[in-house]
Amino acid sequence: MFQVRTDLALEARELYHEEKQQEIPGVAVDQEKINDVTITRVEIMNEEAQQIMGKAIGKYITLECKALRRSDANLKDEVSQILAKELKEVVGNNTNIRALVVGLGNWNVTPDALGPKVASKVFVTRHLFQFYKKDRDEGLGQISAISPGVMGTTGVETGEIVQGIVEKIKPDIVVAIDALASRKMERVNTTIQISSTGINPGSGVGNKRKALNKETLGVPVIAIGVPTVVDAATLTSDTIHLVMEAFSKQAQKGSQFYNMLRELKEEEKYSLIREVLEPYNANVMVTPKDVDKIVLDLSHIIANAINIALHPGIDLKDVNRYIH
Amino acid sequence: MFQVRTDLALEARELYHEEKQQEIPGVAVDQEKINDVTITRVEIMNEEAQQIMGKAIGKYITLECKALRRSDANLKDEVSQILAKELKEVVGNNTNIRALVVGLGNWNVTPDALGPKVASKVFVTRHLFQFYKKDRDEGLGQISAISPGVMGTTGVETGEIVQGIVEKIKPDIVVAIDALASRKMERVNTTIQISSTGINPGSGVGNKRKALNKETLGVPVIAIGVPTVVDAATLTSDTIHLVMEAFSKQAQKGSQFYNMLRELKEEEKYSLIREVLEPYNANVMVTPKDVDKIVLDLSHIIANAINIALHPGIDLKDVNRYIH
Amino acid sequence: MFQVRTDLALEARELYHEEKQQEIPGVAVDQEKINDVTITRVEIMNEEAQQIMGKAIGKYITLECKALRRSDANLKDEVSQILAKELKEVVGNNTNIRALVVGLGNWNVTPDALGPKVASKVFVTRHLFQFYKKDRDEGLGQISAISPGVMGTTGVETGEIVQGIVEKIKPDIVVAIDALASRKMERVNTTIQISSTGINPGSGVGNKRKALNKETLGVPVIAIGVPTVVDAATLTSDTIHLVMEAFSKQAQKGSQFYNMLRELKEEEKYSLIREVLEPYNANVMVTPKDVDKIVLDLSHIIANAINIALHPGIDLKDVNRYIH
Amino acid sequence: MFQVRTDLALEARELYHEEKQQEIPGVAVDQEKINDVTITRVEIMNEEAQQIMGKAIGKYITLECKALRRSDANLKDEVSQILAKELKEVVGNNTNIRALVVGLGNWNVTPDALGPKVASKVFVTRHLFQFYKKDRDEGLGQISAISPGVMGTTGVETGEIVQGIVEKIKPDIVVAIDALASRKMERVNTTIQISSTGINPGSGVGNKRKALNKETLGVPVIAIGVPTVVDAATLTSDTIHLVMEAFSKQAQKGSQFYNMLRELKEEEKYSLIREVLEPYNANVMVTPKDVDKIVLDLSHIIANAINIALHPGIDLKDVNRYIH
Repeated sequence: MFQVRTDLALEARELYHEEKQQEIPGVAVDQEKINDVTITRVEIMNEEAQQIMGKAIGKYITLECKALRRSDANLKDEVSQILAKELKEVVGNNTNIRALVVGLGNWNVTPDALGPKVASKVFVTRHLFQFYKKDRDEGLGQISAISPGVMGTTGVETGEIVQGIVEKIKPDIVVAIDALASRKMERVNTTIQISSTGINPGSGVGNKRKALNKETLGVPVIAIGVPTVVDAATLTSDTIHLVMEAFSKQAQKGSQFYNMLRELKEEEKYSLIREVLEPYNANVMVTPKDVDKIVLDLSHIIANAINIALHPGIDLKDVNRYIH
Repeated sequence: MFQVRTDLALEARELYHEEKQQEIPGVAVDQEKINDVTITRVEIMNEEAQQIMGKAIGKYITLECKALRRSDANLKDEVSQILAKELKEVVGNNTNIRALVVGLGNWNVTPDALGPKVASKVFVTRHLFQFYKKDRDEGLGQISAISPGVMGTTGVETGEIVQGIVEKIKPDIVVAIDALASRKMERVNTTIQISSTGINPGSGVGNKRKALNKETLGVPVIAIGVPTVVDAATLTSDTIHLVMEAFSKQAQKGSQFYNMLRELKEEEKYSLIREVLEPYNANVMVTPKDVDKIVLDLSHIIANAINIALHPGIDLKDVNRYIH
Repeated sequence: MFQVRTDLALEARELYHEEKQQEIPGVAVDQEKINDVTITRVEIMNEEAQQIMGKAIGKYITLECKALRRSDANLKDEVSQILAKELKEVVGNNTNIRALVVGLGNWNVTPDALGPKVASKVFVTRHLFQFYKKDRDEGLGQISAISPGVMGTTGVETGEIVQGIVEKIKPDIVVAIDALASRKMERVNTTIQISSTGINPGSGVGNKRKALNKETLGVPVIAIGVPTVVDAATLTSDTIHLVMEAFSKQAQKGSQFYNMLRELKEEEKYSLIREVLEPYNANVMVTPKDVDKIVLDLSHIIANAINIALHPGIDLKDVNRYIH
Repeated sequence: MFQVRTDLALEARELYHEEKQQEIPGVAVDQEKINDVTITRVEIMNEEAQQIMGKAIGKYITLECKALRRSDANLKDEVSQILAKELKEVVGNNTNIRALVVGLGNWNVTPDALGPKVASKVFVTRHLFQFYKKDRDEGLGQISAISPGVMGTTGVETGEIVQGIVEKIKPDIVVAIDALASRKMERVNTTIQISSTGINPGSGVGNKRKALNKETLGVPVIAIGVPTVVDAATLTSDTIHLVMEAFSKQAQKGSQFYNMLRELKEEEKYSLIREVLEPYNANVMVTPKDVDKIVLDLSHIIANAINIALHPGIDLKDVNRYIH
């Protein structure tokens, strides 16, 4: 049985596609291109697709934009707007919505600090509704935001903290932002994924996270994730493939060597990867050197998109003002 | 009916004492002096005392040490140890205790950052117990620590966050650290109060806090507080008293002026204070200029004391190592 | 000889005016009102005026806007624009200017963190000019920014650090941002002063600063200051005045009391103030409780104004994007 | 001509040794083992050795201790003491020394934040000497500390800032702390190198640093470096070697394949590495996931060692108290 392991639905589908040369049954894929941004909407529709993809039934929307690595203010605004539009689609009717924004991750580790940075920039309003004893407002959603990992080594799991707070304040939805790991370096910091299914175990840079989804929290959880690191295993695996390809070109068809390369089994590859990474304790990550700047830029884009999507009265024209 | 308003039980008792020249009925007071440190233990024993003092029935232990304003490493160690001893007394049997340390306050406002600073320095162990699936350890308590205000303007009240987490992780006790307001500048940053009754509304630098006590959290709450600011009203009131005293000395007994000064009523004084402070919006605080250094020093002292009091295996000799 | 002590030229002039009921000779004053903002331009033109004002010969422009305490995004934009215009006037021809922005103050003390916050938000470009080996750019000035106090207790004086860097990078001008002390609480966080004369000893929240001016740095220094605290001595002095006024109203003309109040000499007032503040060690400040939010808002306004004033290609329309 | 490229003298020597099976002429090597810590002292004594090693003439002392990855307070103390002893050796007579500690690196990028973290923990005293107008003290050195990179994107090069300050305050020595890149993951965060030759171009995580040495600063510069990352090129190169080794074992001696593997030239290997890393923009780093905790631990060890080495009156017994 084929099964893939990646935080991005896009990659899961790609891996299957490469291997089997066909679409996964029960998975609908739709693609759109707006200027430099490619939007891929993957919907996992049944149990079988869920198992193959290793991802829960639901919608996964991915924005890809290579140019995001450059610091282009106009492009950032454009991506914010596209992201906001897709986010609204997933959130559904956003009038008078009460949302809890959860910035996952540890802000002491740069590539993992995306969530807290977004949470700190979201335009928080819940306390205003409470102070003025209002129940609804035409222009504003009722937004709160927390970053449990900001509290450092607390001895309390993120999942426990979020559950506790959700039970107290009973929001309509949770929007969780997380840094992800990608299989391809070219996706790092150029890809934003929205999913309707929340955060599920094993995702993220810190990999022991508890699930944050409708099952564990009792309300729908929309996850926004950006790959900010690549696993060292991925880099190693890519290296092995390239070495073998390079050899293949030089080997005579039918020679012992040629056959050997063709026959190198997946298990043997994995054992090679393990051997390479053993001194690394399997606990390393690969990340761009200017990751701090990139994470800061991305946090602006995502916070702006959330502000537009959840506050009906805020649009792109003035959104930069609501960034905290 | 006489009623006082201060965060320190010590001051409440003093105010009554000055006015009435007698001890408050139902209040036991005990004092001890160890080198430079004066320990005052006030116990409020019944309803009547509770109402006069404006403080809940329970124990209030105050350490006073003028020298704390100087940065003396030996003195800090000594105060840590005395504080630890008093804390142990209030906590009671500390074998295998499961405690949640809550650092109250906003770490973006220096005099209010004491709580978060202490929480970040406490030796947190709960996650280790969970990881090793241990239930008890001879040398270590099971400690977790959070700083809800570190999350910034979250739109969620501190009280709601703490309640949510306490319900999830069910600690035996909560230890809450808070910056207080004092009536006297000389107490600012020289006084540490432990109380067995938790945090009650109106305390602290940010003054709209929800109660954190046994009633609201379901477990005993021990509060550790340090006055780091003085209300501007206090400074103004002190000024008025001094001005009047100065005049009194110069006025002839029996003159119109002398009588006027004597007869100036409390209400008139308050109306004067209001008038002076009106342009200040009644929303100002008075604080030492080197408040950041002092708050940092105090956070070490308190974190060390908590580490000694809650982890039976840690003593003063090695406690500085466990500071994070 | 009359002499005043305040960081604001506006207040120095006011104090003289109140006392002498006339304008200071050698001081030109000009006032303009744009919506909610009052602009006062004070020019100290000769030695005599310099001595009376206790401020160096030069221009002092003050923006006053009570509404700044509210968090109004449109108002902030408007004030940025007005500030930018006045700043341009003082800077003079800003084509291809090479400016070093210096954020004075200690960012661990909230009311003193204004300078570092502004410096961190300015759009820095000097490294780009160096990287692309460019000498000039139509749209961009050549800006660098440092915050010496961010480096904490370094054992090196701010003035030494700035001098060292100015000698190395030889900018055309230095723009220094500093938190000031005001005589009136109502000016705290509602007033912005630009001066063409730099920072002079005794200014600022931390009061032992070295001069940063043309004399010490060799290039013109433009200072931008905002009062974020009031000295406790000011509050006390205001209180004494009010108490005496209140008494005066009740005293019969010609009575001993009335005469006493009239005759209370300045020295006696100062000795009263000293007496009141003695337990405070003369080392306290009075500051609004929400000082962190206000300082953050002001840092945006000032950084935006600097970005507009020094980068010819940036205007209000897109300035919020260049905020870091 | 053989030439190696690594920040660690230890590795440079190892690489040569592996290749040539002999010691480098003009390089003296001495090794000592104290419990878990291996101390290697490499001295580069002449021009030839300098060229082969790719490192300046001078002393390089390396402490290696695998156990440093664990968080063992006793071990940390032991390493501090050993490091202090070696540091004293390099500094020479430390009575009344005036030292400027420079924490290199950007504290927004975790593996690069070692320098700023150490600088913030060093016991700074220069301002005390100036305040008390003292010239010497039996127990204390005259220490100042700066972290130029903490000021963020300033537009001013670190080297310019340090030169400027050194010219102003004229210290006897500079002690520069920097995060390095290693060729082997197993050295990351387990190795501390002291060198008498300062920081030279190309070192460090951010790789465009200006030299900080006696030539550029005019005073001796002692560098303390810890590898906190591995270049992705190193990981890739290790992978290729391992893949080839694995193949070699399976290939028949004399076969086409066997010969091909043996003959694979260095250039071909490099071209393979380039190909693998191309999508990574050659601008990635490999780092442990818990890098924040490790960097914090190391900053304590190094700051303690500096405090012991430069302040004659501080020894291990009380050093943890002087940590800021």
